[in-house]
Amino acid sequence: MTRYDPDNIFAKILNGDLPSERVYEDDDTVAFMDIMPRADGHVLIIPRSRARNILDATPQQLAACMASVQKLSHAVMAAFEADGVTLQQFNEAAGGQEVFHLHFHVLPRHAGVSLRPPGTMEDRDVLAANAAKIRAALA
Amino acid sequence: MTRYDPDNIFAKILNGDLPSERVYEDDDTVAFMDIMPRADGHVLIIPRSRARNILDATPQQLAACMASVQKLSHAVMAAFEADGVTLQQFNEAAGGQEVFHLHFHVLPRHAGVSLRPPGTMEDRDVLAANAAKIRAALA
Repeated sequence: MTRYDPDNIFAKILNGDLPSERVYEDDDTVAFMDIMPRADGHVLIIPRSRARNILDATPQQLAACMASVQKLSHAVMAAFEADGVTLQQFNEAAGGQEVFHLHFHVLPRHAGVSLRPPGTMEDRDVLAANAAKIRAALA
Repeated sequence: MTRYDPDNIFAKILNGDLPSERVYEDDDTVAFMDIMPRADGHVLIIPRSRARNILDATPQQLAACMASVQKLSHAVMAAFEADGVTLQQFNEAAGGQEVFHLHFHVLPRHAGVSLRPPGTMEDRDVLAANAAKIRAALA
């Protein structure tokens, strides 16, 4: 496994060099909207500290991320009146990873509705509106 | 969300009423082969204690599961000379959940190889041989 690349785009989101629609943050984690959502309300949870993926993360990073994953799972369920949640997490390119900073995908799901195919950029206003719904559910 | 069903098949695997190919266990978690693997070496990690899914799990259950997920991720990478790992976790039927005891899917991945479609039962001897490889990697 190669090492952490400090120029990955989530590192830039963390340090403010790139914008994101943040919906939640605490001392250890940040949650923001996926810009290519596979469902309305698709959010990403990342640790503030460096980890390439699950293979090099510390137990503390994993526990902190999962606490936020749980919090966001409840929030997106409420915000989108969802019937379930799918969690995905990808490690190395063969495992589906595209950005090499540990991240968890939380996807609100509705009965009978498939995930959208990956790779389509969402309109910025839609992301902002969906982020507002999640923030309201967390409030 | 409905409550925990103590008759789910993973509860029966935990209490020994149903067989499984266990590859790892500790005080808090058990890992065993998925009988309908979407990749060779597809394992499931579950807590010993009751949780329906991520929505009602305790932080302790989530942290314990993730420690085992990490351990098994390294093991399946080594056992199958994999290039990556995909983690999936499903909550409620709409989220993809079929057995209502919290579980995490760890899938070893190889570059250019898609996951197999779900739903095909694996031969028992193949599962046993793959379990042996994972146990050896953990040893």
